[in-house]
Amino acid sequence: MKPLLVRELLGEALRERRIKQGRTLRDVSLAARVSLGYLSEVERGQKEASSELLCAICAALHAPLSEILQRVSDKMVLLEGEQEMHRVPGRQAMPAVI
Amino acid sequence: MKPLLVRELLGEALRERRIKQGRTLRDVSLAARVSLGYLSEVERGQKEASSELLCAICAALHAPLSEILQRVSDKMVLLEGEQEMHRVPGRQAMPAVI
Repeated sequence: MKPLLVRELLGEALRERRIKQGRTLRDVSLAARVSLGYLSEVERGQKEASSELLCAICAALHAPLSEILQRVSDKMVLLEGEQEMHRVPGRQAMPAVI
Repeated sequence: MKPLLVRELLGEALRERRIKQGRTLRDVSLAARVSLGYLSEVERGQKEASSELLCAICAALHAPLSEILQRVSDKMVLLEGEQEMHRVPGRQAMPAVI
């Protein structure tokens, strides 16, 4: 079973926040003083953000860290539920009946 | 102002969970297949846990990742509140009057 990776959900959460604000990677990377390439990799879940840089990215997004973590936790709950469904045969989703 | 570091709160949350279970660093590090030194550094907020190893540590603690992230988010809310109190002069805590 594929492990649930925090960095992927964190990247999604940061990207969603940036897109919602209609901002570019370039804009946020300049505000956070991180390279555009680094931010892009973090957003795609390809690189672990250090705590210091995560702090800077959240500040650049005017997003409290707690909110981003809450969002990641919410996403994780859903994925854990899906994995549980596939793990326990009796609790698998039923095929749709038309 | 000291940045709020996710790795410190994450380390606290993992340590609290381990202590609550009455388990040793050695026990959990063996179950998670990480070195005792690494786990100890993660718990003390001195090392960033990679997403893969965080997954393994949470599994060893029988703790859903979502729960640990929720705990970290809750801790972060409190710290953000404290920082806000110190940042806005009008909202600073009043000195105790006896």
